[in-house]
Amino acid sequence: MTIGILTSGGDAPGMNAAVRAVVRTAIVDGMKVKGISRGYSGILDEDIFEMDSLSVADTLTRGGTKLLTARCKEFYLPEYQQKAADILRKNGIEGLVVIGGDGSFRGAQALSRLGIRTIGVPATIDMDIACTEYTIGFDTAINTAMEAIDKIRDTSASHERCCIIEVMGRRAGYIALYSAIASGAEEVLLPETYDNDEERIIAHILENRSKGKRLHMIINAEGVGDSLAMAERIQRRVGIDTRATLLGHIQRGGSPTCKDRVYASMMGAKAEELLRDGKSNRVVAYYHGEYTDFDIEEALAMQKHLPEDMLLISRKLIR
Amino acid sequence: MTIGILTSGGDAPGMNAAVRAVVRTAIVDGMKVKGISRGYSGILDEDIFEMDSLSVADTLTRGGTKLLTARCKEFYLPEYQQKAADILRKNGIEGLVVIGGDGSFRGAQALSRLGIRTIGVPATIDMDIACTEYTIGFDTAINTAMEAIDKIRDTSASHERCCIIEVMGRRAGYIALYSAIASGAEEVLLPETYDNDEERIIAHILENRSKGKRLHMIINAEGVGDSLAMAERIQRRVGIDTRATLLGHIQRGGSPTCKDRVYASMMGAKAEELLRDGKSNRVVAYYHGEYTDFDIEEALAMQKHLPEDMLLISRKLIR
Amino acid sequence: MTIGILTSGGDAPGMNAAVRAVVRTAIVDGMKVKGISRGYSGILDEDIFEMDSLSVADTLTRGGTKLLTARCKEFYLPEYQQKAADILRKNGIEGLVVIGGDGSFRGAQALSRLGIRTIGVPATIDMDIACTEYTIGFDTAINTAMEAIDKIRDTSASHERCCIIEVMGRRAGYIALYSAIASGAEEVLLPETYDNDEERIIAHILENRSKGKRLHMIINAEGVGDSLAMAERIQRRVGIDTRATLLGHIQRGGSPTCKDRVYASMMGAKAEELLRDGKSNRVVAYYHGEYTDFDIEEALAMQKHLPEDMLLISRKLIR
Amino acid sequence: MTIGILTSGGDAPGMNAAVRAVVRTAIVDGMKVKGISRGYSGILDEDIFEMDSLSVADTLTRGGTKLLTARCKEFYLPEYQQKAADILRKNGIEGLVVIGGDGSFRGAQALSRLGIRTIGVPATIDMDIACTEYTIGFDTAINTAMEAIDKIRDTSASHERCCIIEVMGRRAGYIALYSAIASGAEEVLLPETYDNDEERIIAHILENRSKGKRLHMIINAEGVGDSLAMAERIQRRVGIDTRATLLGHIQRGGSPTCKDRVYASMMGAKAEELLRDGKSNRVVAYYHGEYTDFDIEEALAMQKHLPEDMLLISRKLIR
Repeated sequence: MTIGILTSGGDAPGMNAAVRAVVRTAIVDGMKVKGISRGYSGILDEDIFEMDSLSVADTLTRGGTKLLTARCKEFYLPEYQQKAADILRKNGIEGLVVIGGDGSFRGAQALSRLGIRTIGVPATIDMDIACTEYTIGFDTAINTAMEAIDKIRDTSASHERCCIIEVMGRRAGYIALYSAIASGAEEVLLPETYDNDEERIIAHILENRSKGKRLHMIINAEGVGDSLAMAERIQRRVGIDTRATLLGHIQRGGSPTCKDRVYASMMGAKAEELLRDGKSNRVVAYYHGEYTDFDIEEALAMQKHLPEDMLLISRKLIR
Repeated sequence: MTIGILTSGGDAPGMNAAVRAVVRTAIVDGMKVKGISRGYSGILDEDIFEMDSLSVADTLTRGGTKLLTARCKEFYLPEYQQKAADILRKNGIEGLVVIGGDGSFRGAQALSRLGIRTIGVPATIDMDIACTEYTIGFDTAINTAMEAIDKIRDTSASHERCCIIEVMGRRAGYIALYSAIASGAEEVLLPETYDNDEERIIAHILENRSKGKRLHMIINAEGVGDSLAMAERIQRRVGIDTRATLLGHIQRGGSPTCKDRVYASMMGAKAEELLRDGKSNRVVAYYHGEYTDFDIEEALAMQKHLPEDMLLISRKLIR
Repeated sequence: MTIGILTSGGDAPGMNAAVRAVVRTAIVDGMKVKGISRGYSGILDEDIFEMDSLSVADTLTRGGTKLLTARCKEFYLPEYQQKAADILRKNGIEGLVVIGGDGSFRGAQALSRLGIRTIGVPATIDMDIACTEYTIGFDTAINTAMEAIDKIRDTSASHERCCIIEVMGRRAGYIALYSAIASGAEEVLLPETYDNDEERIIAHILENRSKGKRLHMIINAEGVGDSLAMAERIQRRVGIDTRATLLGHIQRGGSPTCKDRVYASMMGAKAEELLRDGKSNRVVAYYHGEYTDFDIEEALAMQKHLPEDMLLISRKLIR
Repeated sequence: MTIGILTSGGDAPGMNAAVRAVVRTAIVDGMKVKGISRGYSGILDEDIFEMDSLSVADTLTRGGTKLLTARCKEFYLPEYQQKAADILRKNGIEGLVVIGGDGSFRGAQALSRLGIRTIGVPATIDMDIACTEYTIGFDTAINTAMEAIDKIRDTSASHERCCIIEVMGRRAGYIALYSAIASGAEEVLLPETYDNDEERIIAHILENRSKGKRLHMIINAEGVGDSLAMAERIQRRVGIDTRATLLGHIQRGGSPTCKDRVYASMMGAKAEELLRDGKSNRVVAYYHGEYTDFDIEEALAMQKHLPEDMLLISRKLIR
């Protein structure tokens, strides 16, 4: 049996660890592995090559994805999905591991319907995949964000500033919520809950000042955004030097944390096991303390909510 | 209601985050908090002081424990446990949060029987507490170990050496197993499974050499130990420069990772919630994806086993 | 003899180490030390307090400045300088250590003329103080910038992007030049040398693409700026996804590097030695391999130029 | 003109940056470059291969040495030196860059006498090369040591322990002295100055205890050694829990710091410039604030002394 592997969508630290695990476990189990460059585009461009154990040497510790990634709009169209299935078959690829997020899993689902056995592995720094309590890259991203915020705290505290730090998360506030709790931020603005009540934020700053608290850190998720203008408005209102920093792409990179390397390895190995067992249209998940898998359709229909207890407690901790 | 708080046993990064969470949530909920220095010794020495919100400012990011810790042998004796309960009562302390490991929970259990409401919070870098899938400090420790191993890999690869890296874990191989998978080590020796078959280790080294693999990393848990002598024996047998490094106490320290700060905060808050709700003799746990709690007796009776899937997959990944 | 100490202007990692060294060496030498909050403002506000050895415990490893800092426009006016000298005298302060940049040294010069013995210690992440080959904070800042760029490289390489990374340095390109060499960036734009020839930058990108190089990193100094618009223009012209990241305030913070802790300690001790020896109106410097000092007026008149050899070699290294 | 390049002796972070700089600048200047594996052994084994610009891609950020290194005892013998010169000539190599320490420079000197133009580049984490104020790898090593000590401080402070931390430096105390100042250690033992007066160390510990200082950190250089036994002796005498940690090989590895990457790049480029200019038997140096070069014989005859001012001030800072 020959399996293919690709990474798709936004890159996430740990993708290389997952690829390595698929390749190594497949070879141990007697399969052949072919790598595909740049996600689904690489199938259409037939950018497909053989991989062996050495192809993934010295990749475990590296951020990004050695297989490269790209967004491929064509792949939403049925004709291109059919073309991709044909190309995969032509290359002898019976099973395909797709490492990426929800969008990538939709592609995997399409290929599954066209007779290619596909397994998705959840990888996104945003954690916004409902069926799993862990997504590859999230742990590295929150540590990167936290360490950056720790540095900004130093200088903001020295100048007794108010600061707004914008972290990634367009639709999901996980990075913002975790990094806010971890850094003891005074405020966190999440796409899921933010009510645009800037008056409340301003009142909070003024209240803290009156209590003698001089540093005020606001973690703002990308999905709320508007940090630069918000900083200007707040400064004008409260008369305190207020600066915004957009952490940006540093959050996507970096050598993966131990958790990301281990969990990504386990998930990659799980994906290989599912293919080996003849499964298709499944997505690997870490759920209730163990590695498991879900039907892709079922997985895509699930809803994810920020944990209520974390939201509640985050508010109590900053008093 | 007045509650006390102490840290006990070996220190672990994140203990300060847990203390901060207990203090801050208790104050928001209208309780008074007293800190106790040096674990159970601090009760007997009546080293007890009031804490407010400011007492825990600037501690979230700090390793170690600001409350200090110590081992207290006397506390195994019933007469000292009675004395401690009396002192706590004299200081108006009705509930007590004990942050530590299994040994510390036994003390908490004793005090609970003597009428002090006690809640344990699991903190140990070794992860060897059966009722919970997370213990405070483990995530920081595995990252510290992994980063040290990454550095040793650089120099060992340059010299084409065999190296043995001894990590913490007297009875439990969690740090060794995680850091071995995360660093792609060729071998991992665990107290739970090591069969003293050094011949197999040597055969493995020679086999890899014959395949052209020149770096050979062995992660050895403290509970297996003997790394320096083992390095000498191996070097004598295989004729390859073999060095042992004992990572030692660096694994206990360091600013906690994001996970350790967040989970420790959540667990501290959970402990406060349990006391507020009138519970006693409970230990906080993270189990099957959520924060929960167990009876201390029940928790101490539980058995913990290294995950079988991790053991299996760790062997496949290094081929 | 009583001496005062303040930090002024933008904060820089290592300021605390310098303060600690002044305090500790002065006490060993039998002097009294008074701390002043928020730079020159703190003199005018008479925010002055006694310091002892313990006041600086646990500060060596911390970023920012525990003495706080602020810009003080009033202090440019002679009447306020006179007021400050009077207040210092009233508080028994005969000598003053001013840790900051060129602007802060002008204030020190003014006080020196008014009979307060002053010593400047160069601290700025920008390295733009002409008389010294080292300024406190530069080493930490370039490592922070480099580590952030290393992370951005991971993700940019995975997406085969062009990226522009804006680092600090309004008038001086030191952070940009060092971090560009250290990260192997394809291009570096410096305020001292940039000729606004965007056509050349674009030609360089296209040339590299044609050679098969797909990642293209441009380090841009704040003094050149315009990174977001530049990214848009470049993307429009070359048709390659191009993203800008402004590293911002993370570059000011963080626990100081070993060099920053050691050199800042040595410079603080040197400042104390100068005061002890009855000197005034001097600025401490690291020059040609040793710690020395210059007359402030002379120091402010010196010109600093980016090292020609580094500029030349940086261009050769990226071929 | 064709030049060869090798790394020799103990590896040091930044060696790859120096190799990259030699290769890239030589190619820009129209030379050919050949890499040699495992230092002088690689010449004798004729392990010589062509290098181009791509051979050094993705090496700048990596610790260790991609050219590998080895100690080669044979090379002390004139007959092997002659054989090496012959092999180099046979491979068309007219000039050779040797990256290493004093021992490696002696080999370079021998080859120079045999008509191969040789340039040494100083690389050792120990800083024990007299002609230069910077050696490749030192800056990374002191930061690694300091960060490890920072972690050990956390746990030692929590337990109020005395701790001995052994850092590298067999004959030279630079790593010990820098990391001791940077970490605020109470004591530092250097091979150049240690008088074996353990009574004084013990008296110092007891004095600090009596003053209420409970953490006591001793940085001990490898050249003094004996840390484990010393810890036992001290514990027996002072009755305070005393632990020794040997940092070991982590100090050799790790991604190089910004300074190491930049200075190593500059030194590599300088070596190429010297070969291009027809020089031989020179060693590159950073001396009094600029990159320069010395005759190898002259360089080897120079003496290096720990800076007196640092020794003096280090003692004042810990009061």
